Amino acid sequence: MTSLVAPIEYDDAAPEVRAVYDDIMATRRVPSVNNFWKVLANDPPTLRRIWHNAKQVMAPGALDPLTKEMIYLAVSVSNGCGYCIASHTAAARKAGMTDAMFGEVMAVTGMANETNRLANGYRVPIDPAFDR
Amino acid sequence: MTSLVAPIEYDDAAPEVRAVYDDIMATRRVPSVNNFWKVLANDPPTLRRIWHNAKQVMAPGALDPLTKEMIYLAVSVSNGCGYCIASHTAAARKAGMTDAMFGEVMAVTGMANETNRLANGYRVPIDPAFDR
Amino acid sequence: MTSLVAPIEYDDAAPEVRAVYDDIMATRRVPSVNNFWKVLANDPPTLRRIWHNAKQVMAPGALDPLTKEMIYLAVSVSNGCGYCIASHTAAARKAGMTDAMFGEVMAVTGMANETNRLANGYRVPIDPAFDR
Amino acid sequence: MTSLVAPIEYDDAAPEVRAVYDDIMATRRVPSVNNFWKVLANDPPTLRRIWHNAKQVMAPGALDPLTKEMIYLAVSVSNGCGYCIASHTAAARKAGMTDAMFGEVMAVTGMANETNRLANGYRVPIDPAFDR
Amino acid sequence: MTSLVAPIEYDDAAPEVRAVYDDIMATRRVPSVNNFWKVLANDPPTLRRIWHNAKQVMAPGALDPLTKEMIYLAVSVSNGCGYCIASHTAAARKAGMTDAMFGEVMAVTGMANETNRLANGYRVPIDPAFDR
Amino acid sequence: MTSLVAPIEYDDAAPEVRAVYDDIMATRRVPSVNNFWKVLANDPPTLRRIWHNAKQVMAPGALDPLTKEMIYLAVSVSNGCGYCIASHTAAARKAGMTDAMFGEVMAVTGMANETNRLANGYRVPIDPAFDR
Repeated sequence: MTSLVAPIEYDDAAPEVRAVYDDIMATRRVPSVNNFWKVLANDPPTLRRIWHNAKQVMAPGALDPLTKEMIYLAVSVSNGCGYCIASHTAAARKAGMTDAMFGEVMAVTGMANETNRLANGYRVPIDPAFDR
Repeated sequence: MTSLVAPIEYDDAAPEVRAVYDDIMATRRVPSVNNFWKVLANDPPTLRRIWHNAKQVMAPGALDPLTKEMIYLAVSVSNGCGYCIASHTAAARKAGMTDAMFGEVMAVTGMANETNRLANGYRVPIDPAFDR
Repeated sequence: MTSLVAPIEYDDAAPEVRAVYDDIMATRRVPSVNNFWKVLANDPPTLRRIWHNAKQVMAPGALDPLTKEMIYLAVSVSNGCGYCIASHTAAARKAGMTDAMFGEVMAVTGMANETNRLANGYRVPIDPAFDR
Repeated sequence: MTSLVAPIEYDDAAPEVRAVYDDIMATRRVPSVNNFWKVLANDPPTLRRIWHNAKQVMAPGALDPLTKEMIYLAVSVSNGCGYCIASHTAAARKAGMTDAMFGEVMAVTGMANETNRLANGYRVPIDPAFDR
Repeated sequence: MTSLVAPIEYDDAAPEVRAVYDDIMATRRVPSVNNFWKVLANDPPTLRRIWHNAKQVMAPGALDPLTKEMIYLAVSVSNGCGYCIASHTAAARKAGMTDAMFGEVMAVTGMANETNRLANGYRVPIDPAFDR
Repeated sequence: MTSLVAPIEYDDAAPEVRAVYDDIMATRRVPSVNNFWKVLANDPPTLRRIWHNAKQVMAPGALDPLTKEMIYLAVSVSNGCGYCIASHTAAARKAGMTDAMFGEVMAVTGMANETNRLANGYRVPIDPAFDR
């Protein structure tokens, strides 16, 4: 499979795109950017917006970066996004996810998808205590 | 909305159902069980199977219970399961999720759903480094 | 919740809409049509198209009507469509689904949603025997 | 990946299948049909039904064909259907979608997927003005 | 159903929240903000981020605002997000969507969801012409 | 694409994993296990749990094994899980699904996905008769 638009390499990028690439590499301390950003670079306003979102959302806050990456992975697995599963599994491992933790993320994700359907299918009424 | 089968209360439950209710209440240290279990009780083998799954999957392990509940919540939000969002938000709060943590779970969940579609739509090729 | 457009009752319907209502009632041997059709009647070409599709797809063929209704229900449960779950649970019951069968449809649907995510998350390669 | 049933080429097709292929080629002014139709041809009633649906639904009406193709693409991206993304991106380009328009379809699609989850997760109550 | 956190009214909002509300009302020329924003206001950085995203993504560009709203609606319908369906149907109507256009948005959205599954289920191989 | 963890072959498996493999082969009367199980074997508690679930859920009961496999397939198609579609199409064929039956499973699955969105998008109110 090839992308629908060509990835834009650093050397071929316009200054506004290079500025985003530079910020990604500096923030994440990596020597290059992933295909996701190189493909988004075909639409510079979207590249800049998504990177600024990612920078804000994934920064350490009330949750640490590893927890955030595992939540990201669980959502990507539920949606069946192949690229996202691959890249966020790598990112979560880099942030400290062990094999045992990966196994548990999968187990919780799988089970949540199962019980979501049981709750839907049986049309379980929300308990008064939860429906504040 | 009412459930498609009647919830089965403790006093009306058969011994095999009561045994599961008792184990849920003892394991979770709660005085009663939620509607989810009372509705599943109409199909005792499923009630027992799902409870044993939940007990194993949600027990502390490589991940702590709070992290597991937040992952569960993120999946339920992505799937749009109203009952599951309500019950697992409550469970996560009980396990220690603050308002700030809830806000960040939502922010990560929302953003993952956005970038999942951008990766799909642009058909971003998986970086060789991720495709081991 | 109210629908976004008003349901159109038989007495208020244009002849082309009445013709579809009459065919639904005759085919299904029911004295009136469900809200789904009354709402679609606001867009007569869609009403007619969807009814013709339903008539063809749900007719007995290589699969009997009960099996078809249970598959319909499993999909509706997976998608979390409240109206569809309610109406196709009723339709499946009318076609012969017992409580035990309903319980097993839910169990299979729940488990398929779980293992779908495990297969996605672990990125399980397709066995050569399946990839003809 | 190969399809689960063999695509049926024009020269090997039964008359009823050829009639649909002919109508597709004439309606769309193309010299051949896509794999989607060649695969569906294994089930002629479905081939005919889906083509008649597509012909009616995608014809110019209150919406022009380009708008319809972009909506189709947005849904396919949300569902993660690889074939559909590829074929409807091509169809939308043929109908006039520029690179800038493609970028905006992706941006809206991504953002809608994000805010859908925020609305679900926070359980935002429907404003009275919207709930007519 | 009530939201999981209380909506924050203008008079009770902190200055940073009021600033966002003011910008929403000025940009959209409306006298108040929807529940979506009042609920997000519990997490001011997310409120500000999502509003800035919406402002950029939904502004007129290569696509006009009505087309963007109809794409937004198609995605919300596919995801089954009740709040989003209600609010974006209202927004699309305000931007000029007629009843006939609404019917066609629904028809395309429904059909895309159908053919997405046929393409998946038959595992239709991507035509070489689409897989550039 | 390769899996994120290496599949574990029988000869390399620990005794607790071999015991599950043996039970799968004996129950299903097959000479080896699929990749799904070999990949799950990296997390033995999940391997054992999922196998015990599958054994219970997919056993003949109120529904026969073929009906269960077709429901499983319909859900996997709706979720777009490539591995699951491939493996459960094979399993359903083994249980007796003919080409005509496969075509009807696809037709019902596709149509259910279409009408689910029409019901959501028009916000069809649940008929009193269905909302017991």
